[in-house]
Amino acid sequence: MTKREHNSRDIFRHFSAEYVPQIDGLITGLFEQKIAASDAMFMEEMYAAISEFCLRDGKRIRPLLLINSFNGYKRGFGGRAGIINLATAVELMHSFLLVQDDIIDRSELRRGKKSLHILMNDMYGNLSLNPAIGTDIASVLADVIFSCAVELISGADVRAAYKNRFLRVFSKTYEMTAWGQILDSLCTMPSSIDPQSDAPMRISLMKTAYYTMVYPMIMGYVLSGGRNEREKKRIENFGIPLGVAFQVRDDLLGVFGVEGDTGKPNDSDIKEGKFTLLVQNAVTNLSGNERSKFTECFLKAEKSHQDVEYIRQMIIDSGAMNDTISRHKELIDEAKLKLEELALTGRSRDVLCGVIESVEDIPV
Amino acid sequence: MTKREHNSRDIFRHFSAEYVPQIDGLITGLFEQKIAASDAMFMEEMYAAISEFCLRDGKRIRPLLLINSFNGYKRGFGGRAGIINLATAVELMHSFLLVQDDIIDRSELRRGKKSLHILMNDMYGNLSLNPAIGTDIASVLADVIFSCAVELISGADVRAAYKNRFLRVFSKTYEMTAWGQILDSLCTMPSSIDPQSDAPMRISLMKTAYYTMVYPMIMGYVLSGGRNEREKKRIENFGIPLGVAFQVRDDLLGVFGVEGDTGKPNDSDIKEGKFTLLVQNAVTNLSGNERSKFTECFLKAEKSHQDVEYIRQMIIDSGAMNDTISRHKELIDEAKLKLEELALTGRSRDVLCGVIESVEDIPV
Repeated sequence: MTKREHNSRDIFRHFSAEYVPQIDGLITGLFEQKIAASDAMFMEEMYAAISEFCLRDGKRIRPLLLINSFNGYKRGFGGRAGIINLATAVELMHSFLLVQDDIIDRSELRRGKKSLHILMNDMYGNLSLNPAIGTDIASVLADVIFSCAVELISGADVRAAYKNRFLRVFSKTYEMTAWGQILDSLCTMPSSIDPQSDAPMRISLMKTAYYTMVYPMIMGYVLSGGRNEREKKRIENFGIPLGVAFQVRDDLLGVFGVEGDTGKPNDSDIKEGKFTLLVQNAVTNLSGNERSKFTECFLKAEKSHQDVEYIRQMIIDSGAMNDTISRHKELIDEAKLKLEELALTGRSRDVLCGVIESVEDIPV
Repeated sequence: MTKREHNSRDIFRHFSAEYVPQIDGLITGLFEQKIAASDAMFMEEMYAAISEFCLRDGKRIRPLLLINSFNGYKRGFGGRAGIINLATAVELMHSFLLVQDDIIDRSELRRGKKSLHILMNDMYGNLSLNPAIGTDIASVLADVIFSCAVELISGADVRAAYKNRFLRVFSKTYEMTAWGQILDSLCTMPSSIDPQSDAPMRISLMKTAYYTMVYPMIMGYVLSGGRNEREKKRIENFGIPLGVAFQVRDDLLGVFGVEGDTGKPNDSDIKEGKFTLLVQNAVTNLSGNERSKFTECFLKAEKSHQDVEYIRQMIIDSGAMNDTISRHKELIDEAKLKLEELALTGRSRDVLCGVIESVEDIPV
């Protein structure tokens, strides 16, 4: 372990401590202003609810990566406040997607508290005979959150050409993540499984690697004035293994994690039939009768406790768990290697080391 | 009837014939390009589906109002292609909202064809055991449509300050329409009715008047370089009565329209319990037992054919239908009066006369 790696967690912590309050402060102020300008009680209540939702504990990893990339690549100074605005817009896009994700996954919890559609049902369920009122409202409140992101972008004081390039990457991020979500829907509760499918890898790339790592860094890069396609490619080469490692870690925690640590039950991925890289490894490793039996059980719409235990055990026995842990390690090593190629300042590189380390540990 | 009004329908038709092909051409080209760049079959199929959806017959009233306002206010020339890009982005926002609206209203038809969530269920229902797969996919495909709107904005060649002001109005439009939709959800299948409620008027303002008339015109105005707050106020004074008249007409057609003309059943508003200005007039006009009986019937979650007929008859007998028709006429007259105050060129004014005329006729 090099000295840089040894200190990188602290450096990342300091970096977070510097910028997260600025991001959260901007979100707080924005919604306070909206509440003050509201002339209807339901709007005030709902702005307060989305403000609380957006400000729940989270790593703010996407805006932090944007800011870190901007700092690490920038030539000269100026426009810093504008960068925080745009980074915060990226965080609001994330909140938008979380609301939508919870609706699609029928999740009742988000970051340890009620998901927004459940909250809305609690607050307004008695006003309407429509049983889906909570979901209907939350899906449109997500739009209110997104419109606030667009508002922040409109007001951000950065050079016009840079803002246009940022907007282009912002729209790509939004679009690619949507495609990842759609593919995820197509692969959840599937009616059949193809062990050769490229879908699990595609989902990891679209919903995680590009969304969480590559594009936020590229946004920061273009906002610093960067236009070098080779550097963008190097960011991709770094962000992809890191992002896929992040997803693989999430898949492992989804099956073997401890609920108290992860904040979510460790049987929901299996129950929902999420066709992850982990499950794909199990199907690939098994053959003959064992594969048929595993597949049949995995495809059941309703799974008993025994079914879940059987699937979990087969993931271990088939060697899929170990293969996936090895793959995770390879990906982390690759990210470390590719980090060296980025034309970043030392401090920004150290911050990224801290990000790698946080993805490296798998508390299973 | 003045000469201008006499010719205004033709002028509006010519104006549409000039710009609708440009808007639709841009949408066609955008999705063709996306299909060509796709490397997965499901993406190609879904891009084709959303392209077909966005290009269905419609008036394209919002982008046309934006362009007309730009033309009528502009000082000097230039940047026309950029304006079409931004106008098309507004049309894509509209398509996004239609997909969402159909999901929330559980509507199976849009513009005489299957709504997007029904199409998706037809196309992909067999891939998953998830019964809501069509809705889940369509709700995220709406995001793909919106991301394309953001992409068009990022590439539009207009002055930076104007684009920022456009983005600000664009985000306001998106946000206010969302609030209108939420209030609409709160007022659909209500558990009680308050005849004094300002909700029906608010919904008309938020979901229709600002969204369809005021904001598209203001977008065109700011893109022409306009910054005069008094002129923006005059646009509001014109767009509000015109937009509310549009909504009132829609309410009347929703109850008394002929399905073949309107493309939607004339009992769904009543069945869904939509608390429109028309229904509010009926409740206000009725008193005592009649009001109680009407209200009770209107609040039923399931309404028989007889219930629907009773409600429709009471809307007539209470005088609510005639009151609403009178109100519609007053609003149209007000819009005509306020049109005269706008600092627009003659041709743009004539185009707006054509818009007023199309809102004036109520084929009931």
